[in-house]
Amino acid sequence: MTPRSAPAIRLLIGAATALGPGKVALLEAIGRTGSISAAARELGMSYRRAWLLVDTINDRFTAELVSTATGGKGGGGARLTATGIEVLRRYRAMEAKAQASIAPDLAEFADFMKDGPTIPASSEEE
Amino acid sequence: MTPRSAPAIRLLIGAATALGPGKVALLEAIGRTGSISAAARELGMSYRRAWLLVDTINDRFTAELVSTATGGKGGGGARLTATGIEVLRRYRAMEAKAQASIAPDLAEFADFMKDGPTIPASSEEE
Repeated sequence: MTPRSAPAIRLLIGAATALGPGKVALLEAIGRTGSISAAARELGMSYRRAWLLVDTINDRFTAELVSTATGGKGGGGARLTATGIEVLRRYRAMEAKAQASIAPDLAEFADFMKDGPTIPASSEEE
Repeated sequence: MTPRSAPAIRLLIGAATALGPGKVALLEAIGRTGSISAAARELGMSYRRAWLLVDTINDRFTAELVSTATGGKGGGGARLTATGIEVLRRYRAMEAKAQASIAPDLAEFADFMKDGPTIPASSEEE
């Protein structure tokens, strides 16, 4: 087998997967672009899907993670709230900590795996 | 907020999510039932979807994780191979280790989350 790095993990938090790679990628893209429609384009996701995901995310947390300008449904501005920024920071920190905790196990686990095509880290497909 | 336990995490291994909660639940159900169709029923998944997932899983690893009897396409027997059993063992061990490594962080993170309806742990939806 050709040598390559061990696989990375992604966290799904909560039985209802309150937060996972797909939602986190969307939130980060909204933070970068200041727009749900621009974030959706960046992720190759329909605007409608992105909007529904934002609604779902906001509903899962005690405070909104994304705030949208009035008229936002038409593609108006959107930004991460202070809570959103903090939740993302904690998510990435937990992901890195969990990854580090099992790095040797993942390196061994990789021996069972073929190299596969790279799929966007936002993928949460089965 | 009503007290409740911290959220659990689920691992998605690999950028292509070679293995995640959905595939693991399917593999475990196949191990229990000895049948892809019975496992699919148990998970409320179509037989076609379960079969395609098994094909995908077997293709991601250097050895098959599930072996099917001839005529299996019609719902014949299926079983986990020794590799499949070992991969599941390692997956669950890594999941538990990663969870333990961030347990305090998850407990704090839970303060940002509402209690949500329970969704099957096999869910890998965004």
